[in-house]
Amino acid sequence: MGTVLVIYASDYGHTKRAAAEVALGVERVVGTNVRLRSAAEVTREDVLDADGLILGSPVHMGSIHWELKRFIDETLSALWNQDLMVGRVGGVFATGGGYGGAGGGCELAMLSMLATLAELGMVIVPLPKCTESYAHGGLHWGPYARCGSDELSHTPPPAESLPLLMAHGQNVARVVSQLSPQTAGRIARPSFTSPQT
Amino acid sequence: MGTVLVIYASDYGHTKRAAAEVALGVERVVGTNVRLRSAAEVTREDVLDADGLILGSPVHMGSIHWELKRFIDETLSALWNQDLMVGRVGGVFATGGGYGGAGGGCELAMLSMLATLAELGMVIVPLPKCTESYAHGGLHWGPYARCGSDELSHTPPPAESLPLLMAHGQNVARVVSQLSPQTAGRIARPSFTSPQT
Amino acid sequence: MGTVLVIYASDYGHTKRAAAEVALGVERVVGTNVRLRSAAEVTREDVLDADGLILGSPVHMGSIHWELKRFIDETLSALWNQDLMVGRVGGVFATGGGYGGAGGGCELAMLSMLATLAELGMVIVPLPKCTESYAHGGLHWGPYARCGSDELSHTPPPAESLPLLMAHGQNVARVVSQLSPQTAGRIARPSFTSPQT
Amino acid sequence: MGTVLVIYASDYGHTKRAAAEVALGVERVVGTNVRLRSAAEVTREDVLDADGLILGSPVHMGSIHWELKRFIDETLSALWNQDLMVGRVGGVFATGGGYGGAGGGCELAMLSMLATLAELGMVIVPLPKCTESYAHGGLHWGPYARCGSDELSHTPPPAESLPLLMAHGQNVARVVSQLSPQTAGRIARPSFTSPQT
Repeated sequence: MGTVLVIYASDYGHTKRAAAEVALGVERVVGTNVRLRSAAEVTREDVLDADGLILGSPVHMGSIHWELKRFIDETLSALWNQDLMVGRVGGVFATGGGYGGAGGGCELAMLSMLATLAELGMVIVPLPKCTESYAHGGLHWGPYARCGSDELSHTPPPAESLPLLMAHGQNVARVVSQLSPQTAGRIARPSFTSPQT
Repeated sequence: MGTVLVIYASDYGHTKRAAAEVALGVERVVGTNVRLRSAAEVTREDVLDADGLILGSPVHMGSIHWELKRFIDETLSALWNQDLMVGRVGGVFATGGGYGGAGGGCELAMLSMLATLAELGMVIVPLPKCTESYAHGGLHWGPYARCGSDELSHTPPPAESLPLLMAHGQNVARVVSQLSPQTAGRIARPSFTSPQT
Repeated sequence: MGTVLVIYASDYGHTKRAAAEVALGVERVVGTNVRLRSAAEVTREDVLDADGLILGSPVHMGSIHWELKRFIDETLSALWNQDLMVGRVGGVFATGGGYGGAGGGCELAMLSMLATLAELGMVIVPLPKCTESYAHGGLHWGPYARCGSDELSHTPPPAESLPLLMAHGQNVARVVSQLSPQTAGRIARPSFTSPQT
Repeated sequence: MGTVLVIYASDYGHTKRAAAEVALGVERVVGTNVRLRSAAEVTREDVLDADGLILGSPVHMGSIHWELKRFIDETLSALWNQDLMVGRVGGVFATGGGYGGAGGGCELAMLSMLATLAELGMVIVPLPKCTESYAHGGLHWGPYARCGSDELSHTPPPAESLPLLMAHGQNVARVVSQLSPQTAGRIARPSFTSPQT
């Protein structure tokens, strides 16, 4: 019925691992297909085929990975320009060392990705506090898998954060399946913005 | 089928005027009811009755009006604590003098309101670029009615921004009506976050 | 030589406790005076007397306490309007339960306070990663004292975060003392913005 | 006495033009040198030589140009890691089509650059409202030169915004010259963060 595309950038494979968990959550929603692509390999066609879009990035200097930004600038901006994604569904997640224990800049990093989704006119799915494992990386904008225990370390997403990542993928997929089911969540520009029919 | 509650704070009546226009847009979606309340008068019951929630504020010092913040702190935070709004639908708008011509801080002000909606676990409706009158106050997070022409002036929302405000109310109402139509957009906590049934 | 004013809002006394620690740090810089005021008691004169300003708040629904916002709207906005604080020095801190372990919204909350300082035209002092105890609540925008261990708990700032709060007060005071020492950091509007003399 | 480095990314030469104007402002402060570099050509040594750093970018999809982000990720993050820029001075500016008239996302774009400066531990210079030409692109975080009049156009920075860009460069340079004059604004890590000497 619907397809959700998960796009990630990854330095050490940890964000890729987190993205795979998000994708597993998408698949738990009956009738939903998932595609998992790195920012380096994803194509314009992958995006246009998707009813839902989930962006994930490590936190670099308080914002997202430059490879994901390049994909946004070079590919997604053209879809923005033509209003081709309006009314579809999106969500975000992030990973990071999290040195400081105060989020390490993950909030602005997620907002940078959410700004892209909003520019595209996409409906945004947040992360409810009641989500399973919220205590292990939950932020209202999306899940944050803490891949590190001090300033410099790089470790895989902790096991206790995996259910949270999965639940987020599931939530996004569920909204995809519920939003205009007859069109698999793809609300055409006219029906979204024109005067009431 | 669904009810959308528009909550605003207003100093000179200009944000109230903008809120009324957003409410008119909600009403254009067949089967949707609208309620318009100031931050000083709205009650917990008003919020619990609503399938959709739209928050609007003038921009004060780069963020929202303190009266709206008090309502958020005193009333909405309790609903957040009990996860009572999860899966419902929300949107935001702002007004402001806009001195400088660079948004005047409306983006962080809108994000402050959107953070509240995300904390509540609500699905967020942005403002697509293709929306009518986008050139007159369009920002991807929501409409911004510029109520002023220089540093100190206070004027009503410009006529050319009214269709944009109306369209935003309409978009939010449309997503309310499409998201789980059988439950009027009110997705119960279990169906939103639990493992797939 | 210079005076730093620390303004806080507090629900349970924990942010007041954090503010007191920040104030202790200010006092460690020779020749600097400190004043500690709640948002409910601080006056316009307190602000005008200060060469440096530090704002602190608990995180409520992803932004600041409404009492601090009221003070900003009612008192600081008038100083903004008259450009009376331009060139002085500022910083921020926050406290919060931090449920989720991903900052709990402290970044946007700090940015909401920093937007106020920027609107006032004040030079902003961040929190360098090399600061003592950065691992215990360090964020680049300022220190975050985590007052809680789960969704609902409220506890005092942890002991290991106190040196971080103190160091931040000290850093702000140090910049106050170094910025235009002859005027104790108070750069008048003309010297800040006019063509080079 | 001090050196200010202006780094920009540019698609059509308009942000390069804006950066040149910022650089002119730096030069108006007696005793200050300026260097102007694109994100593609700037080196680690350029950054280490600078007492002040100004970052500028076009707004792309609500955040900064990927080429500037790549420079941040690949070069500045290493300086962050070693705490080599702590206590120096920074500022930001942006350009953009500004379709919508509400800032077009320039605020989060500027905050993305400011997050980098804050991560580096740099003192941040905002844009005071009383600055000359503030009405033509003034935002409290920095100047925004609107390079476009509708959704798709690309035009040079408007003439009336040039004094604003220049004033911002001048303000940053002035703080560089005032902050620890004997060290040209370069506050070594120990003196910035250690207990009072």
